[in-house]
Amino acid sequence: MTITLIGLGLIGGSLALSLRQHGLATRLIGVESNPAYARRALELGLVDEIGLDVAAAVAPASLVIVAVPMDAMLAVLPQVLDLVTAQQIVIDVGSTKGNLLAAVASHPRRGRFVAVHPMAGTEYSGPDAAVRGLFEGKTLVVCDAEVSDADAVATVETLFRALPMRVLHLGAADHDLHTAYVSHISHLTSFALALTVLEKEQRGEQRIFDLAGGGFASTVRLAKSAPSTWVPIFRQNRENVLDVLDEHLLQLQKLRELLASEDYAGLTEQLEHANAIKKIIP
Amino acid sequence: MTITLIGLGLIGGSLALSLRQHGLATRLIGVESNPAYARRALELGLVDEIGLDVAAAVAPASLVIVAVPMDAMLAVLPQVLDLVTAQQIVIDVGSTKGNLLAAVASHPRRGRFVAVHPMAGTEYSGPDAAVRGLFEGKTLVVCDAEVSDADAVATVETLFRALPMRVLHLGAADHDLHTAYVSHISHLTSFALALTVLEKEQRGEQRIFDLAGGGFASTVRLAKSAPSTWVPIFRQNRENVLDVLDEHLLQLQKLRELLASEDYAGLTEQLEHANAIKKIIP
Repeated sequence: MTITLIGLGLIGGSLALSLRQHGLATRLIGVESNPAYARRALELGLVDEIGLDVAAAVAPASLVIVAVPMDAMLAVLPQVLDLVTAQQIVIDVGSTKGNLLAAVASHPRRGRFVAVHPMAGTEYSGPDAAVRGLFEGKTLVVCDAEVSDADAVATVETLFRALPMRVLHLGAADHDLHTAYVSHISHLTSFALALTVLEKEQRGEQRIFDLAGGGFASTVRLAKSAPSTWVPIFRQNRENVLDVLDEHLLQLQKLRELLASEDYAGLTEQLEHANAIKKIIP
Repeated sequence: MTITLIGLGLIGGSLALSLRQHGLATRLIGVESNPAYARRALELGLVDEIGLDVAAAVAPASLVIVAVPMDAMLAVLPQVLDLVTAQQIVIDVGSTKGNLLAAVASHPRRGRFVAVHPMAGTEYSGPDAAVRGLFEGKTLVVCDAEVSDADAVATVETLFRALPMRVLHLGAADHDLHTAYVSHISHLTSFALALTVLEKEQRGEQRIFDLAGGGFASTVRLAKSAPSTWVPIFRQNRENVLDVLDEHLLQLQKLRELLASEDYAGLTEQLEHANAIKKIIP
């Protein structure tokens, strides 16, 4: 299958590696607005060639994957749908769905588009961040599948199941709500933790390095993520993110109150409740 | 060297493994108030024998390591110092130092005690959580070394440098301040994140599991930690923890304000600032 990848960053690049590894792509064409990324993607062998322009890159593809930041996605996806025939299939791999699906809801080629979100990533970005096996064993969320053509959905699910990924169907609104709760808030808290420590340890980089155990490193890891990826996600999912952030502020204030008032039995009870996450994420 | 370990949990157990691996302990005696932990530590070969009582276990030791939760530490450490001779050495491995050092400041054997904090751990607890190599390449903080006998400090530092660990000298007050900033706040935010997600996803354990990528897992990992370890730490370091928690609430509220007012340039600037953590924790 000839596959065209628009966007050769962490997700696009890792998908290229996975599709190739599982023999799912016979020819991989890349499109990338950053010339240094395009050159690097070729050097790394992520794609076989770089398309001259979007139209030329889309024409020979059975499947077009759009893997650009969420703000660019809103512009690029309708442009790609303008180009495809009734035989081609288009997917996005974006982290938010509501606005995106609304933007293409009445497009004549809406049926050829399948909205998916592979629940995987790292804090790094660009083609050098591409890693083999990133999607293995993870969940692929397919959104509003009933609005897409059945053959397109079937082809896309077969492809991702081969990586292998678990397929989960969700409405776009549900997707945006639950990813805010489980994924987007983790990034916000990690960014805020980094800001907290940097504020408290001004001119104390060596001190942070000296005292950082594995716990700090793992909690602050997501704060290394690219603002150019995450600001558009927070923007597109603003209401859900604000909602879960308010809950998080409440929970932190509750812990603060228990500690300030020296209610250690109450604090223990809360931490024991938090421990329930062990049963879910072993 | 005969070494007695009081407390055979994650830190005590991991130290036993490291000391044995590097040929630093010829005989390891354990003391453990939880009979199931004591039995398990013997089964795992963490120690050679379990002492009948603290006095019997301390008597033959050149070095006594007290590795119990911080509240128990305040009671156990003076009791151990009552038992030792002017030739023996005692260390704690506790996460807070101010109250502990104040509690033994005028003890006649204060010179034989060296306060250390190995900056390493995991979210698990008990002897089964003991892991080989936990301390390798990490920092050992030695607090108020000038109050300890020079020979005791030299022996302890030589021992930990062999694991190998880097040695860092800090005053007890500085230690408590900076560990609050770098370590304790990470645990609080992780506990609060777990509480947030559990609150938002009530009866949604499967949903959390489905949507959790590596980012959520790493941010929420510390929320699996034992309240019996962490409530005493928060309690002993209460003022510093409240101070850094207040800063963290300010930082989260600042991010919230930028998102609520759709100031995406301002949000980008904050996340770029947070990215500075990359240079410190690569």
